[in-house]
Amino acid sequence: MVKRGEHGSFNGKDYVDPPAAPLIDAAELTKWSFYRALIAEFIATLLFLYITVSTVIGYKSQAKSSTDPCAGVGVLGIAWAFGGMIFVLVYCTAGISGGHINPAVTFGLLLARKVSLVRAIPYMVAQCLGAICGVGLVKAFQKSFYNGNGGGANGLADGYSTGTGLGAEIIGTFVLVYTVFSATDPKRSARDSHVPVFHLATIPITGTGINPARSIGAAVIYNNSKAWDHHWIFWVGPMVGAAMAAFYHQFILRAGAAKALGSFRSQTQVV
Amino acid sequence: MVKRGEHGSFNGKDYVDPPAAPLIDAAELTKWSFYRALIAEFIATLLFLYITVSTVIGYKSQAKSSTDPCAGVGVLGIAWAFGGMIFVLVYCTAGISGGHINPAVTFGLLLARKVSLVRAIPYMVAQCLGAICGVGLVKAFQKSFYNGNGGGANGLADGYSTGTGLGAEIIGTFVLVYTVFSATDPKRSARDSHVPVFHLATIPITGTGINPARSIGAAVIYNNSKAWDHHWIFWVGPMVGAAMAAFYHQFILRAGAAKALGSFRSQTQVV
Amino acid sequence: MVKRGEHGSFNGKDYVDPPAAPLIDAAELTKWSFYRALIAEFIATLLFLYITVSTVIGYKSQAKSSTDPCAGVGVLGIAWAFGGMIFVLVYCTAGISGGHINPAVTFGLLLARKVSLVRAIPYMVAQCLGAICGVGLVKAFQKSFYNGNGGGANGLADGYSTGTGLGAEIIGTFVLVYTVFSATDPKRSARDSHVPVFHLATIPITGTGINPARSIGAAVIYNNSKAWDHHWIFWVGPMVGAAMAAFYHQFILRAGAAKALGSFRSQTQVV
Amino acid sequence: MVKRGEHGSFNGKDYVDPPAAPLIDAAELTKWSFYRALIAEFIATLLFLYITVSTVIGYKSQAKSSTDPCAGVGVLGIAWAFGGMIFVLVYCTAGISGGHINPAVTFGLLLARKVSLVRAIPYMVAQCLGAICGVGLVKAFQKSFYNGNGGGANGLADGYSTGTGLGAEIIGTFVLVYTVFSATDPKRSARDSHVPVFHLATIPITGTGINPARSIGAAVIYNNSKAWDHHWIFWVGPMVGAAMAAFYHQFILRAGAAKALGSFRSQTQVV
Repeated sequence: MVKRGEHGSFNGKDYVDPPAAPLIDAAELTKWSFYRALIAEFIATLLFLYITVSTVIGYKSQAKSSTDPCAGVGVLGIAWAFGGMIFVLVYCTAGISGGHINPAVTFGLLLARKVSLVRAIPYMVAQCLGAICGVGLVKAFQKSFYNGNGGGANGLADGYSTGTGLGAEIIGTFVLVYTVFSATDPKRSARDSHVPVFHLATIPITGTGINPARSIGAAVIYNNSKAWDHHWIFWVGPMVGAAMAAFYHQFILRAGAAKALGSFRSQTQVV
Repeated sequence: MVKRGEHGSFNGKDYVDPPAAPLIDAAELTKWSFYRALIAEFIATLLFLYITVSTVIGYKSQAKSSTDPCAGVGVLGIAWAFGGMIFVLVYCTAGISGGHINPAVTFGLLLARKVSLVRAIPYMVAQCLGAICGVGLVKAFQKSFYNGNGGGANGLADGYSTGTGLGAEIIGTFVLVYTVFSATDPKRSARDSHVPVFHLATIPITGTGINPARSIGAAVIYNNSKAWDHHWIFWVGPMVGAAMAAFYHQFILRAGAAKALGSFRSQTQVV
Repeated sequence: MVKRGEHGSFNGKDYVDPPAAPLIDAAELTKWSFYRALIAEFIATLLFLYITVSTVIGYKSQAKSSTDPCAGVGVLGIAWAFGGMIFVLVYCTAGISGGHINPAVTFGLLLARKVSLVRAIPYMVAQCLGAICGVGLVKAFQKSFYNGNGGGANGLADGYSTGTGLGAEIIGTFVLVYTVFSATDPKRSARDSHVPVFHLATIPITGTGINPARSIGAAVIYNNSKAWDHHWIFWVGPMVGAAMAAFYHQFILRAGAAKALGSFRSQTQVV
Repeated sequence: MVKRGEHGSFNGKDYVDPPAAPLIDAAELTKWSFYRALIAEFIATLLFLYITVSTVIGYKSQAKSSTDPCAGVGVLGIAWAFGGMIFVLVYCTAGISGGHINPAVTFGLLLARKVSLVRAIPYMVAQCLGAICGVGLVKAFQKSFYNGNGGGANGLADGYSTGTGLGAEIIGTFVLVYTVFSATDPKRSARDSHVPVFHLATIPITGTGINPARSIGAAVIYNNSKAWDHHWIFWVGPMVGAAMAAFYHQFILRAGAAKALGSFRSQTQVV
C-alpha cells in the first residue's frame, strides 16, 4: 500500500502521534466548545457525587437501623454504584470534554502534554465545584441522614498509618492513569480502531476510589476536622500516582517503542 | 470522497441530523410494523415486571423465613435482576420497537421530536398494560407470597420526605434519558458506528429503578392505599427528569455543537 | 451500490434468510466437523456442570460450618458462577458447534428449522452425557461434601406448587430462547455485523438456570427420589418455553417483518 | 480479491496459520521490545498481587473485628478484585508483552509453539519476581495486618484432599488456557477481526484463581511451613491443565479442522 509505505518512510509506524498540546493555548478560550466541555465536566461530577454519596449514606443508615444484616447494598453495592456511574458519565461526556471527571486524570494528561494547561486548570476547578454541589445536594435533600452518617467523607480507616493510605492512593491512581494512557494510545487506536468505547469499560474498574474532586466535595460540605486532617493524602497521593504513570508510559513504554523500532529498522532497512 | 465533501459544504458535519418526527403521523397507523412494535413493547414490559417482581418477592420471603441471613439474593441481586432483564429486553426489542420499555424514555424522545405523538401514546399504554399483566401473572402464580410481601410496589421508605423521593426520581431519570440521548446521538453514531449495541450496555446501569410502567403495574395489582398514596411521585419525577434531560441535550449540548462549529468555520473557511 | 440493488430487487431486504435446515441430512454424519461438534458440546457441558455444582456444594457446606454468615459466595456468587461459565463456554464452542450447551436451545433451533433433526438429537445426547459425567466428577472428588449437600439437584423449593415451578421454567426458557433468536437473526447480523460475539454476552444473563441437561446430570448422579419426583418439570417447562419462543419469533415478529415490508413496498415501488 | 484467491488455492482457508515459533530464537534477545515486555510482565504481576492480596487481607481483618457481619467486601468482592485487576492488566499489557501475567498461560502457549522457549522462560521469571515484590509491598505497608491474616497464601481448605485440590487446579487451568487458545485462534480472528479486545473479557472470568506466580509470591513472603507444604499443587496442577488444553486445542479441535476441510474439499474440488 502506498499510504503505509509513505508513513513508513517518515516514521516507520502505521500511526501518527498527535503533536504535543501547547502549554498555553489562548485560542481555546474563545470557543464555545471549551465552555461546553466545562459545563459537561461540572454536571458529570455533580451527578457522580450525588448518586455515590447517596448510596454510601443509605448503606450506613440501613446497616444501623436494620435487623436484617444483609438489608443494605453492602460494600460491593457501593463499589458498583461508583463504577457504574463513572462508566455512564465517562461514556456520556467523552465526546464533549474527553470524560475526565477526575483531577488526577486531567493532571496525568497534562504532564504527558495531551491537554493544554489552559484547559487543565478550568477542568479541575469545574470538577471540584461540581463535586461540592453534588454533595451539597445530598445534604439539602437528606440532612439528618447526611450528618449522622459521616457525610461520605474520605478518611483513613482505623489502624492504618498515613504512609499506608498514601501508598494505596499512589498505586491506585497509577493503575487508573496507566489504563487511561493505554486506552488513548494512538498505537492501540490504529490497531483496535473499531472499539473506541471499549476503553471506557476498563476505567470504572480502577476508577472508583481515587478522585480528589470526590474527596474535596465531601470535605467541604461535611466540614469537620476529621475530614480535613488527612485531606492532603487524597491530593498528594493521586497526583504522585498520575505523575508516575505518565513517566512510565512516556519514558519506559513509548521510548521503548522508539528503540525497538530502531533495532527493527537496522535489520530490515539496510538496503 | 465526494459524499463527505457534499455534506461538508452544506452543514460542515460528517453526519446528518434526522428530520424531527412529525407530531401527528397518521400513516404510521396503517403499517403492521407499528402494531408489531406495540406487541414487542407489551411483551417486553410484561416479562420485565414478571421476573423482577418475582425476585423482589422471593427475596423478602426468604429474608423472613431463613435462619441464614444471607440466603436471599439481597439488594444487590435485585439490582442485577432489574439491570440484567432490562438489558436483555432492550437488546431483543431494539430492532422492533426501539426498545423503550419505559414511559419516561418514550416521553423524553417525544419532547426531542425523535418519535411522533401518534407513536408515543400507544407505546406508553402498551408499556403500562404489559406491566399490569406481568405483575398479575406473579400474583396468579404465587398468591400467598405476593400478598404477604408488599407486592413489589414502589413507595417511600420510612424517614424520607416527599421532596426527597421526588428529587431522587428526577435525578435518576435525568441520568437515564441523558444516556439514551448520548447513545442515540447521530454525531456519536457517525464516529462509533461499529458499536451500536454497546449503547444498550449503559442503559441497565441507570435504568433499573425509574420506570412509571413498573410503578403502575405494581400499584394496580397490589391496590392498597399505601401503594397509591405516593404514586404521583413515580410519574411526575420521571417526566420532569426526562424533560430536563431533553432540554440539556437539545439546547446546551447540541446548540453548543452548532456554535462551536461556527467558530471553527470562521477560522478555517475564510478563503 | 449494485449489490444492494440486486438484493433489493429479489426480496426487498438487505440480508438473505438462510434456507431452512433439512429435517434429515444424512450427509452431515460423514463429516468429521459433526463429530468434533459433538465432542465440543460434551466437554463444554461437562465443564459447566463440574464447576457450577462444585460452587453450589461449596456454598452449602460453608454456610453450614461457618460462624461468619457471609463467608460463602452466596446466591449471587452462584448466579455469577453459572453465568460466567456458560458465557466462557458458549464463547469457546460457538465456532465449533454453535455453542448450545442446553437441550432447550437445541430444541428451539430445531423447531425453527435452524438445525437438522440429525444434528439436534446427538447434540442433546452429548449434552446430557456431558452433564452426567461432570456431576460424576464432582462426586468422585468430593464424595462426602457431595452427598451431604443435596448433590446440586434441582427441585421445587418448599411452598411452591408444581404449577408455579412449571410457569417459572416456561417463562425463563422463553426469554432465553427468544434472546438466542434475536442474537442469531440474519436481519440483525446485517446491521450489527461487527459485533457478533456481543450476542453471547446476553445469553448468560438469562441462561443460568434453565437447562434440562443440568437437571438430568444432577438427578442421575444424586439419584434419590426427591430429585426424580419433579424431574419432568425441568424437561416439560423448558421445551414448552422454547416452542413458544420459536413461535413468537417466527410467526409474530418475522411474519410481521414480511407484512411490514409489503406495506413498505406498496408505497415505494409503485412505479 | 487476488489475495484471498491465492490463499484459497494454497490451503482452502480464509486465514493463515502463523508459523510455529522457533524453540530457540537468540535474535529476540537483542531487541529492546523483548526487555520492555519483561518489564511490563513484571510490573503487571506486581500490581496484580499488590491489589488482590491487599483485598484478601482487608477482608479477613474486617471480618474479624467488625460487628457488622457483612461489612467486608466478601468472597464475591475478592473474586471481583481478582477478575477486575487481571482484566485491566491484560488489557494494558496485551500490546506490549501479550498480557500473559501467569506462568501457566506462558507454558501453554510454549507447548503450542506460540512463543519461543527463549521468551517463555524469562517471562515466567519476571512473573514470579513481580509477584514476590507485589506481596512484599503489601507486607511492607501493612505488616501487622499481613502476618495476622494468613498472608494471602494459597493452601488446601480443611477437609479437602490433595487429589481434590490438584483436580480443581487442573480443570480450572484447562478452562483458562482453552479460552486463551480460542481467543487467539487465527481462524476466529479472521471472522471476528473487529473485536480483538473482547477476547480479554473472557479471561478474567476463568483466570482469577489459577496462577503459579500468585502462589509463589505469597509463599515466599509469608514463608511458613503451611504455605510451602502444598505448594507443588499450585505448580503441577496448572501445568498439567495447560498441557491438556494445548493438546485438546491442537490435536482434537485443530486436527479436526484439517480433516473437516479435507472432507469439504473432496466434495467441492473434485473438478
